Amino acid sequence: MAAQVQRMSRLMVKTLRDDPADAEVLSHKLLVRAGFVRRTAAGVWSWLPLGKKVLANVERIVREEMDAIGAQEVLLPALLPREPYEATGRWEEYGAELFRLQDRKGGDYLLGPTHEEIFTQLVKDQCTSYKDLPVILYQIQTKYRDEARPRAGILRGREFTMKDSYSFDTADEGLAESYALHRAAYQRIFERLGLDYRICAATAGAMGGSKSEEFLAPAAAGEDTFADCPSCDYAANTEAVSFELKAVDGSAVPALEEVPTPDTPTIETLAAYLQVPASTTLKNLLVKVDGEIVGIGVPGDREVDMGKVEAHFAPAAVELVGAEDFEGRPDLVKGYVGPQGLEKVKFLADPRIAPGTAWITGANQAGVHAKNVVAGRDFEVDQYVDVVTVQEGDPCPNCGTGLNLDRAIEIGHIFQLGRKYADAFQLDVLGQNGKPVRVTMGSYGIGVSRAVAALAEQHADDKGLVWPKEVAPADVHVVAAGKAAQTELALSVAEQLAEAGVRVLVDERPGVSPGVKFTDAELFGVPTILVAGRRTAEGIVELKDRRTGEREELPVAEAIAKIVG
Amino acid sequence: MAAQVQRMSRLMVKTLRDDPADAEVLSHKLLVRAGFVRRTAAGVWSWLPLGKKVLANVERIVREEMDAIGAQEVLLPALLPREPYEATGRWEEYGAELFRLQDRKGGDYLLGPTHEEIFTQLVKDQCTSYKDLPVILYQIQTKYRDEARPRAGILRGREFTMKDSYSFDTADEGLAESYALHRAAYQRIFERLGLDYRICAATAGAMGGSKSEEFLAPAAAGEDTFADCPSCDYAANTEAVSFELKAVDGSAVPALEEVPTPDTPTIETLAAYLQVPASTTLKNLLVKVDGEIVGIGVPGDREVDMGKVEAHFAPAAVELVGAEDFEGRPDLVKGYVGPQGLEKVKFLADPRIAPGTAWITGANQAGVHAKNVVAGRDFEVDQYVDVVTVQEGDPCPNCGTGLNLDRAIEIGHIFQLGRKYADAFQLDVLGQNGKPVRVTMGSYGIGVSRAVAALAEQHADDKGLVWPKEVAPADVHVVAAGKAAQTELALSVAEQLAEAGVRVLVDERPGVSPGVKFTDAELFGVPTILVAGRRTAEGIVELKDRRTGEREELPVAEAIAKIVG
Repeated sequence: MAAQVQRMSRLMVKTLRDDPADAEVLSHKLLVRAGFVRRTAAGVWSWLPLGKKVLANVERIVREEMDAIGAQEVLLPALLPREPYEATGRWEEYGAELFRLQDRKGGDYLLGPTHEEIFTQLVKDQCTSYKDLPVILYQIQTKYRDEARPRAGILRGREFTMKDSYSFDTADEGLAESYALHRAAYQRIFERLGLDYRICAATAGAMGGSKSEEFLAPAAAGEDTFADCPSCDYAANTEAVSFELKAVDGSAVPALEEVPTPDTPTIETLAAYLQVPASTTLKNLLVKVDGEIVGIGVPGDREVDMGKVEAHFAPAAVELVGAEDFEGRPDLVKGYVGPQGLEKVKFLADPRIAPGTAWITGANQAGVHAKNVVAGRDFEVDQYVDVVTVQEGDPCPNCGTGLNLDRAIEIGHIFQLGRKYADAFQLDVLGQNGKPVRVTMGSYGIGVSRAVAALAEQHADDKGLVWPKEVAPADVHVVAAGKAAQTELALSVAEQLAEAGVRVLVDERPGVSPGVKFTDAELFGVPTILVAGRRTAEGIVELKDRRTGEREELPVAEAIAKIVG
Repeated sequence: MAAQVQRMSRLMVKTLRDDPADAEVLSHKLLVRAGFVRRTAAGVWSWLPLGKKVLANVERIVREEMDAIGAQEVLLPALLPREPYEATGRWEEYGAELFRLQDRKGGDYLLGPTHEEIFTQLVKDQCTSYKDLPVILYQIQTKYRDEARPRAGILRGREFTMKDSYSFDTADEGLAESYALHRAAYQRIFERLGLDYRICAATAGAMGGSKSEEFLAPAAAGEDTFADCPSCDYAANTEAVSFELKAVDGSAVPALEEVPTPDTPTIETLAAYLQVPASTTLKNLLVKVDGEIVGIGVPGDREVDMGKVEAHFAPAAVELVGAEDFEGRPDLVKGYVGPQGLEKVKFLADPRIAPGTAWITGANQAGVHAKNVVAGRDFEVDQYVDVVTVQEGDPCPNCGTGLNLDRAIEIGHIFQLGRKYADAFQLDVLGQNGKPVRVTMGSYGIGVSRAVAALAEQHADDKGLVWPKEVAPADVHVVAAGKAAQTELALSVAEQLAEAGVRVLVDERPGVSPGVKFTDAELFGVPTILVAGRRTAEGIVELKDRRTGEREELPVAEAIAKIVG
């Protein structure tokens, strides 16, 4: 199993010394500078020879681990008919993110963003009995999403490579097992890839279904924020962190008392005027939900996450109230709203506004606030909702320790979908008792091209990329640093290594200075750099570990033996 | 290097006993019946587990042979911006065959049918000096063509997998060498795939450029017709067969003589009336080219290939003349046109109407024809063109032997494009003399998914598919034909084979009769079928060669040894 020697003189690669002007994040800068990828259009990338090798390595690892859990590889089209997505409502729900097109006959098609519908139809066609299940199908395939702001290079593209898989079971326990198989396979995949990652509780989002977890790779360039407990193993996407509702005893709180607070229409002005922390005040946000005014109460030191509010009310439309909404509503006093006077308005609250807790809030008259306003005594909460932004130091829902917040890249996501898609397509199989059983599904994704970017984010230094061994475009980068003798030795060492199955890139470019070759080698990030340099005549080469920077000089045979291992 | 055992009980596959209603060709019928592929939309297919394995094997062979000629693998997007295709005119030229779409901002995109433009831009960006060339780049990627009549299953789909490669050289000799490398690699690929194929001269078509050859796999389902010489090595797509123009001595032909031929407006009626073979008459077709009438003369026994006529005049529009076009044109007498009276009309002719040849043709008056009408004496040919349909028995352009005509599937096509695309994008590199050199290109394609269909067309019998070894979805299909003892033996043999690196499919489905298992095994077409059947107790199994049908009974150890080889 000899490997091929890749000669730099024949490799199509052009390295850049400067960051591309449009690059914001590290992986974008480095992958472009090292000639691994090239932008073809906004959010649409080409993989050049070295980048393609890394991508292929990631695909191979994903494939091996999916095969190992008994998943069967298939390949579905990217060009998909409208009808199945119409059946689940996603033709509309996806909005502008879906690439839609028509064929020459005017038939409606889409470029698949994910394939739940098509897999459900496939299994409905292929599996008829409980004996045909469970089944796990996967594909490594090109996906399309028309992102509003394609950014960050291949971290968020409009055309990208994904591994998506789908499990089909007759019972909930089966789904739990398929989910556990995936979870374990993902752990092996990300470990082999060399990615630092956390498994985080997640919200299901547009996918629907119940349980879901994300695999997040911490990185400054990440678009997700996750909360991480330093004491226990709790980790969750901040979107999924929920605060436990815990009633307290408020019976000792004095009666509600109104106090004049002139010119304090904001939390800041109020807290300053009363000399209290903002966290003791209750902020009441008014929104219109499909035209109807709704109040949302949160502690004064908290921000409302409008994305969470919209998700809560979806598919109803949410907008903030304007000045005109206060006209003819004496019950709504701008800047001085308090829930104790909101009889005509539905009132939602953050779980921190638990029954028994006491607050300072508006008295529903200009220039006046109320103290000792107790939830459940002075006002009622119609529904508790998680809509505030999680903050660094918020208590861990598991153990109460203050949470850390970090940025991360979503590299994998696993879902227990349940029967949402099976219901849409009446996916039943004949059960053991002879009666039809509705199938339950899971859906599981890995961003294959995105994983390459995540690797570049996590494995780089000021000199360039530093690939983990299994994904590196080569095992050894041999540099001929000198004239004919060095080139001869470099080529000979490269051949011997390749003979032993080692993947070798050899830089034998004539007329290129050793300095340029070293700089390129550091930029490419192959794990081991072998230099045929000034001690070539003695048969001594230098081995350098790209990650640690450690160097040692060795006779050729020893160097080869050390690499082959 | 142990392989995995694929158990039939866990494989998602549903075989059909009957051909699908919409299937016209053998490969479509068999690949669907065997559960290798499934139709998702018109011309859009899903590859199921067994089919995906075959497809992956074809891809692997293509990749290995492309790597062996030093080609570098890349991966370009399928979603492509309009501008580069606008620059070469192909945005329009492709017509309805191009899938076009808009993104959320109204930008125009297409789904790539082939990538000359994008590769040219890529190399312009990456290569600046003659030292960077030659370079050969390839990708195995999904292509899109909105076929008017997607038919024949995966033989002609609208989404399909192709290997496309592109060579870049500074000199014509370099292009010739890159072309020769591809030609040899294609021969190795098709030989390894086990495809029967012919290399045929071809026309360049919409791709442009000079030399081009097709790799055609003879099959009844093929959409191409090729001419094949039984005496020499000549083979050509019938579209590319040209007839040599050879002037003859017509000086002995008597003077032109007009003869009354009442009611003979067609070649059939004329030949019958005069009692002469149709081949002695001259048929004059009138067409309108961008509105202007043009005459085309061909021997009376020949059909005009309108596709060739359109290709000749492209991009001008060609239509047949109608009755209204004869009005006010006394020089054009319907049914009795002769070139000797066509002074006002441009006259093109087939090379068989060579100078000196004599013909019977219309006398430009109703009911009258002319004899002894000699080309070059009685009329002039403005231009000779190859527009007639080639016929079985036509002389070989090489050696004159009568040609055979056969149907075939185009599985590969290699082109010397020359500088067409380099000109469109000003692709120059700095030459050895310090001056810019325009780059010359080749473009080379293999229909990867189509090759699977071609294999199914060529390797099948009345029982099903018969895969060549390197592409088969498994090496051995082990059948447990009986109860527990047979199943146990089958599984044990399967494990031992897999241990030795043999790819094994084992049919251990409980409750499925041996007859059904045998039928499925023949349909799948794995090269070797191993049956644990009635002599299981003696430790004897049956080995069957799927292709030849030869069977032999052997002790287990011997059977395993024979397979492992």
